[in-house]
Amino acid sequence: MLYIILYPLSDTAMMLRSAALIAALSLAAATGGQAAAPATPSEVVAQAPASAWRAVPAQDILVMTLEDGGRVLIQLAPLLSPHHVANIRTLARAHWWDGLSINRVQDNYVVQWGDASEKKPMPPGLVPTSPADYSRPWAPLVGRAVPLPYPDAYATRTGFVDGWPVASDGKQAWLPHCYGYVGVGRNNSPDAGTGAELYAVIGQAPRQLDRNIAVVGRVVDGMARLSSLPRGSGDLGFYTDAERKLPIRSVRLASDLPEQERPKLQVMDGASASFADYLRLRANRKDDFYDRPAGGVDLCNAPIPVRLAP
Amino acid sequence: MLYIILYPLSDTAMMLRSAALIAALSLAAATGGQAAAPATPSEVVAQAPASAWRAVPAQDILVMTLEDGGRVLIQLAPLLSPHHVANIRTLARAHWWDGLSINRVQDNYVVQWGDASEKKPMPPGLVPTSPADYSRPWAPLVGRAVPLPYPDAYATRTGFVDGWPVASDGKQAWLPHCYGYVGVGRNNSPDAGTGAELYAVIGQAPRQLDRNIAVVGRVVDGMARLSSLPRGSGDLGFYTDAERKLPIRSVRLASDLPEQERPKLQVMDGASASFADYLRLRANRKDDFYDRPAGGVDLCNAPIPVRLAP
Repeated sequence: MLYIILYPLSDTAMMLRSAALIAALSLAAATGGQAAAPATPSEVVAQAPASAWRAVPAQDILVMTLEDGGRVLIQLAPLLSPHHVANIRTLARAHWWDGLSINRVQDNYVVQWGDASEKKPMPPGLVPTSPADYSRPWAPLVGRAVPLPYPDAYATRTGFVDGWPVASDGKQAWLPHCYGYVGVGRNNSPDAGTGAELYAVIGQAPRQLDRNIAVVGRVVDGMARLSSLPRGSGDLGFYTDAERKLPIRSVRLASDLPEQERPKLQVMDGASASFADYLRLRANRKDDFYDRPAGGVDLCNAPIPVRLAP
Repeated sequence: MLYIILYPLSDTAMMLRSAALIAALSLAAATGGQAAAPATPSEVVAQAPASAWRAVPAQDILVMTLEDGGRVLIQLAPLLSPHHVANIRTLARAHWWDGLSINRVQDNYVVQWGDASEKKPMPPGLVPTSPADYSRPWAPLVGRAVPLPYPDAYATRTGFVDGWPVASDGKQAWLPHCYGYVGVGRNNSPDAGTGAELYAVIGQAPRQLDRNIAVVGRVVDGMARLSSLPRGSGDLGFYTDAERKLPIRSVRLASDLPEQERPKLQVMDGASASFADYLRLRANRKDDFYDRPAGGVDLCNAPIPVRLAP
């Protein structure tokens, strides 16, 4: 789904052909027939077998419902951010965000939500956090990392671990600030934030924040609800008193919802052949549209496929 | 303006201090007093002397006025994209975009505008374009390039030439697809597009498009008008018939407007000490908020300062 096309509305030949190709390939796979190799990242995702997907545990899914009924799903990353994720689960179970609002939208930077009044008491049971939480030792992770063999301006090595992009200096590993990634607002250091004030990236990856702020997860569904909000006209994109702060109806862990209401998410397995194909095509695409394969891909420009379970 | 702050509304000490610092430094500069060195990229921009800024020629500024009165300013890049920019000037002078619309908004990708009917005749005088227009020889540019000494996943060297970011393989140079950058929609290769169908990037830099599409300029004012538009629900983010396509009232070259209506833009001079300070602080910020300097900066994460002339 990456074409920049000039005549989209009547020249549907290309799109129809793509759709037909995907359908044909799916059919071929289903019938055991010989399928052509996928030519685009989208085709890889469409054709990936069930074995290439891993279920996301329900306690790792945050369901944010906005006042207008819009739903935003956030996948949490306890592996790389255990203390902040513990706090976020505590806050969700206390219904802490219910009735709060989105307070800041700064273009090409972040959407931020939390308690604009700054007066809401914190629930009991939050664990302390510190700058030590911004990264984790690399050694225990390296064995199961899928490396991304392209240079990066911010890290000496990059790759994917258990469905997450990671950057590393060879000693520590951390989650990068990619588009849609969720971090924890805080005051000046050494305050590391509780997890109560959250933001999502809505522009070019602000990787200068890596290891200066806790990244705790990513928006995996409903991102456009956040990214298309009006930008705030106050300093740093905060809404002024005259501007409307979109209320948050509720935030729940999927595991606390009735079984039939739980969204079921799947992440593509980094060790699967599908993910290898996906990365190869993100880095080197050549087809009727792409003349010149890029020869590489940035860590934040190869988003790990996530889907609602079929 | 890059802080992620937890308590923005009452804990204004930090913001007030920043504002006071900038004011004090400006005063010190104005009175010949001793100013402290700027500590943030924003402070560098605020303090840069008049000599650090270069006026943008009026024929390089496209003024797009939307139906709701919103104004978007686009700076064109004739140095790196001469044929497409010639066509865009021809189209603006023919008032070609007047009454057309924004037809596509795909999250984390592009906003696209042009002729949804595909029936509007082209004006005379357009010049042919080809894939050869996607890059330019590097040799004539290298002497005036300010290098960016950090690795890049898509190019063997990066830097800035005459106020533009450039990527190069040592032979050719091209404009990267950064946030807010404007490219030319096209059909399948070898079609290189006329310049009539344009898009702006609204997410993570889709650098895989570099050298596959003509980048012709960048949005320098009013970007939030485009990036906050509702996403289209059709394929590739195109608006469906049921969705509203925001009409374009007019697109003009600033040089074709009456003198008093022309927006006056300035770009920071890449050879200035201010720009060197700016780059240094984009790559390595350390202050009360940033504990850990990044150690580098991505080509698309160091946007060249552009401002309306004071």
